[in-house]
This record gives sequence, C-alpha cells and structure tokens, in this order.
Amino acid sequence: MRVEGRPYRTVWSDAARSKVCIIDQRHLPWNFSIEEISSVAETAIAIKDMHVRGAGCIGVTAGYGMWLAARESNNSMASLRKFAELLIATRPTARNLAWAVNRQLLVLGDTPTTDWEHRALAEAETIADEDATWCELIGQHGLPLLSAIHKKKTRGEPVQILTHCNAGWLAFADWGSATAPIYAAHRSGIPVHVWVDETRPRNQGARLTAWELQNEGIAHTVIVDNAGGHLMQHGKVDIVITGTDRTTSTGDVANKIGTYLKALAADDNGIPFYVALPSSTFDWECTEGLRQIPIEERDGNEVSLMDGMDSDGSIREVGIVNPESPSGNPAFDVTPARLVTGLITERGICGANAESIAALFPPEIRR
Amino acid sequence: MRVEGRPYRTVWSDAARSKVCIIDQRHLPWNFSIEEISSVAETAIAIKDMHVRGAGCIGVTAGYGMWLAARESNNSMASLRKFAELLIATRPTARNLAWAVNRQLLVLGDTPTTDWEHRALAEAETIADEDATWCELIGQHGLPLLSAIHKKKTRGEPVQILTHCNAGWLAFADWGSATAPIYAAHRSGIPVHVWVDETRPRNQGARLTAWELQNEGIAHTVIVDNAGGHLMQHGKVDIVITGTDRTTSTGDVANKIGTYLKALAADDNGIPFYVALPSSTFDWECTEGLRQIPIEERDGNEVSLMDGMDSDGSIREVGIVNPESPSGNPAFDVTPARLVTGLITERGICGANAESIAALFPPEIRR
Repeated sequence: MRVEGRPYRTVWSDAARSKVCIIDQRHLPWNFSIEEISSVAETAIAIKDMHVRGAGCIGVTAGYGMWLAARESNNSMASLRKFAELLIATRPTARNLAWAVNRQLLVLGDTPTTDWEHRALAEAETIADEDATWCELIGQHGLPLLSAIHKKKTRGEPVQILTHCNAGWLAFADWGSATAPIYAAHRSGIPVHVWVDETRPRNQGARLTAWELQNEGIAHTVIVDNAGGHLMQHGKVDIVITGTDRTTSTGDVANKIGTYLKALAADDNGIPFYVALPSSTFDWECTEGLRQIPIEERDGNEVSLMDGMDSDGSIREVGIVNPESPSGNPAFDVTPARLVTGLITERGICGANAESIAALFPPEIRR
Repeated sequence: MRVEGRPYRTVWSDAARSKVCIIDQRHLPWNFSIEEISSVAETAIAIKDMHVRGAGCIGVTAGYGMWLAARESNNSMASLRKFAELLIATRPTARNLAWAVNRQLLVLGDTPTTDWEHRALAEAETIADEDATWCELIGQHGLPLLSAIHKKKTRGEPVQILTHCNAGWLAFADWGSATAPIYAAHRSGIPVHVWVDETRPRNQGARLTAWELQNEGIAHTVIVDNAGGHLMQHGKVDIVITGTDRTTSTGDVANKIGTYLKALAADDNGIPFYVALPSSTFDWECTEGLRQIPIEERDGNEVSLMDGMDSDGSIREVGIVNPESPSGNPAFDVTPARLVTGLITERGICGANAESIAALFPPEIRR
C-alpha cells in the first residue's frame, strides 16, 4: 500500500539480497523509518520488541529470519533448529510465527545444505507473496459484505465499520486482513467510514491503522476502546471487522486484548462481527481457544508509560499511571466462536464453527 | 479519606467562610494541590474543565457554587436563576449537578434574600455532609456482598473487585460510591484486590482510583480498559462495582464510557455487576436511559493528547494519535438495567428495576 503516494510492503529483502528491510513500526505515525536487519538475533529482537507486529507481518519477518538463520547455521540442522526455536519463542500467541518458521524447516530439511541460503530466501519471498495475495483475496471476498450494507443505505451514507488494533497492511506483507475489504470497497467507489479503536496499551489503532487509512485517503475517526459499545447502541456501526493472531479449527479467535468486549457489544446490538484472516493464522490442532491458546503477558510498563510527540516535535515518554501502582498487561484475549458471525479468508467466507471451516479448508489442504 | 495519612474531603469552605476549597484533581497523582474558588464563574470553570469531577463531587461543588451565587446575586432571584443555569449547563450527563443546584434554588426561594448567603452556605454544608454520610452507608450496605464472597474462598484469597473510572472518594465528598464497600471491607479485615480500569480517555482509574487506593493501603493493579473481559473469562474477577452519573427510576445506568462493555462481559461470565450510588444520582423522571439521558460529547483532544510525567519529573502533554486523524469523544454510555445485578444505595441494595427501586425509594421520599 502507499506511503505518501509510493507503494511499500512491510518486509522485503534488499536489492543486494544481503539484508532484510522492515518498516520500523515503533516510530509511526511520527517517523517513517526503515530498519535493516542482518542476523537472526536482530530478527528476534525486531519481533519481540515489536519493531514489526501483526499476524502476517510477524510470519513474513520470521520467514526472512529463517533465511538469515540458514546463512548463519554452518550447514548444521541442529543449529538451524536452535534459531527456529529462538524465533518461535519471541511471541507466544502469534500463530503465523511458528507456521512460517516450521514451513522453512520443512523445506530446508529437503534441501542440500549447500543450497540452503538460496532456497530459504526463495521460500521467504514466497511466504511474503502468498501473504499479500491472500490478503488481497480476503479483500475481494469481504467486499460483498460492505457492498450489501451500502445498497441498503437510502441516502448513500458511508458504510460504518469498526475495527480494533491494526489488522491493516502494516500487520501483513500488504493489504491487511481486516482492512482489505475496506480498501477494496474504497477502490470500488463504496463510501466507507472507519471507527478506529485506539487499542491500548500500545495504541496500534490510533498510531498505525489511522496512519494507514489516512495514507489511503479513507475517512476515519479515532475513538477510545471504551466507546465502541455506545456507538453500536446508537446505530453508528454497521459491521465490525477485526484480525486475529490465532484462530482455532472450531472458530475461536485470539486477537488483541479487548476484541472480546467488542464482540459482546456487537452481539448485544445485532451487529455482524467478522474476523478476517489468511489460513496461515489457523491453528488446526487447536479446538478450545480459551483453554488452549497461550496468552502473552507483556511488561506493565506498556500500560504505565506512553510515548507521543510533544509540542516541540520531539518524541517523549511520559508516565500516565499513579507511580506507586503496579500494572497488569495481558496482550490478547479469546473471542468464543459463538460471538463471531463469520471468518473472511483467502478462500471465501465461512462460519466460525468446525464444520463450516472444514468445508472451506478440508484437512488435505491444511498446512 | 486520607492523603499521606491526613484526612480530607474533596470540597469544603475555608476557615474564614469566604471561599470554596477543592482538591484540583487535574494534577493528581503527581501533585496534590488545593484550589481556592471565590466566584460562580470560577466554580463553573472548575466543573466544566474537570478540576473536580465525579457524580457526588460535582453536586457538592455546585452546592457550594450556589452559595457563591447567593453572594453575587444582589438579592435578585432572576440573577440567582441565571447562575443556576450557568452551573447546570457545565456538564449535561451528571445528575447530581442539577439536583444540588435545584435544591439550593428551592431552599433560597423560601428564604429572605438578606439571609441568602448564610442559608446557602448551611445548605451546601448539609449537601456535603449528606453525600459523605450516604457514601459511608453505601459502604455498610455493600460490605456483606464482599464478605459473602470472601467466606466462599477456601484459602483466604483476596476478593477480586473490578472497577471502572473513579467512583472513589475523589468523586464524592468522601468515601466514594463504588469504593465505599471496598474501604469498608478493608477496614473490617477482609482481604481485597482491585483491578483498576485505567479509563480512557482521561485515565481517572490510573490516576485517581489507583492513587486513592494506594493512600488507603489497598492492593490493586491498573489494567487497560480492554483487559477486563479476559480477566473475567479466566475467573480473576469476583464482582464488578462501578459508580454512575445518572440512573433512571427503572435502573438504567449512565456512567463513564466503557461501563456498558464491562457489564456485558460480567453478564457473559456470570459475574455480579453492581452499581453504587447515593439517591441524589437517581433521575426520577427518567425511565429509558438509552433514549432520554443526554450523553456529553467532549473535545477530541482528550483522546489525542495525553499528559503525564516525563523522566525529569515535569508534566508534559504529548500527541498519541496520528496527527492527521480526527478523534471522537463520547464521555458516557448507558448500561441497560437488564445487565445490572443490583444497586447499592444509602438505604440498602435493590434490584435494577422500577418495582425494586420504588420499594426502597417510595415516591414520597424522592427529591
């Protein structure tokens, strides 16, 4: 998607094929900066410390990380596996991470070690390309949902979409999951307006989703995470679309903390609640989200400290919690399948239940 | 309640009976400062710009404001009414505001104008005393709820209470509404732990409730507003208690934006959701919260700018939203009575429905 008019992906290999380039998302929306990564250790830090974040983007970065791992492994499968473990351990909830790393391990296991570096880079590029293509397909499959809402509006008012966190193109290689139908609708001339949850504690909505939408010229309003229920009660939301970091084969959805509360409000107000995901986000072995999906507990400083731009244009960090008080910081929650209207995937839309998911993704095509 | 060991109320008249003193809550938790107010205009600013905030505290401040109004009215009822209108217009959702102002108008209407100043001060003190007494009674009536939960714990674990915003003593003259049962439990030796919603956009939880609880030595953890649902799903919350800015005679509850989402989560997880209020918060004429209670829309800058303390100990304001993006800021939402387990009042606990409320507050004692 575009940054000041120029197209970008979130992760790519440099022209000399020696480094991985990422958009360092920690500095957005204030500074658009690109970080060059040349080792597995740097890749792990970039994922763990959230220079990159978001389901697909973590997976694609890890795919490239395994290319760097192949280069650093001295032809040793034991060493490659160590690097794989290091990468997988960076974020416990994210499904795409293990998915991309294990995919590289499988491919490299069938490749002569002398060819590892070349093969791993090719696979990393394939993972990135697939991610972008899948997200674009999610956009095409989700578009009719927004188009149908638009057709029911008598005076051409915009379709009102609420989203939580950033499941935009910054969270993938390109296009995004939750945002893909929005971008598709906007490009096909359907008027849309997006309510952007700021998404505490890291404010990915206020910082990233808002920045993305602005760069693509899409009308939006940032709101606090508390506001969505009230807007739904008053008919100001037509549809909720979020992303997911891990989805069970039964349709339970782990996503950024607070998603569950929006799903409850949508349910209480009869508003459709869709989750958009490429199939790489499914955890096929997992059938009970609340019991089985590990929820990352992050540092309480993410709650108690906030960075932003002061009136001089400097980025500063300020304490926003009573200094003597401890903070808790669970990073994700699980929305039970019963609250999810449907899943928008690269193969089409299905219900959030084992049968419907299996019909769209029969076991033989799962990986 | 105590600030560094010394007891305070939030609002009082100075020793010379010439000014109103308030704790200026804008500077907490970093600076405990007292503001002296000597005119109605200053009172209106203090309420509108939230030097004071919270249901009871706004009412008590407005009560004292009417004392200053009596002094400035030159014995003119027309002038007194103008001041009354000015005060009532400062915050549209708060019920206690109009309640206190109208109570003063009624009293002064029966008082010779030469005696206005003296009578208005006496009434302001009565309003403050009643508020404090009512909150203390709310604590006594709510205590058995916490005590019953504690008795069911097999290993003496603390009772886990979640609260939203600040319905603590800072929101009243003293004791608080939602916090009163917590303070009562703590003083009677029941172990408690409070999950404090930070309460965006103005962070009254992270700044005020956390500061209050710390000053009273009560265990607590600050969480983002997104986290409560997840904690409830995992059995980490025994009871939710919030305050309210206006409650209908049928039990619908207007409170700080986001309260509705917590009520939905409590309902979904079978957790009791109580609302604590002195009867001054009831709007007896109001029967349909969602349709009838006006919801204040505040400046979007409250969402996009955040103040806090930097590493040098200075208070700074930083922008935390993509600079080109607009922000929306509805300040309250309405929790339908069906989601409220009960109302804790100064006369006891009742169900959130017209019959139960009428049984506890028969029409002849309503005012």
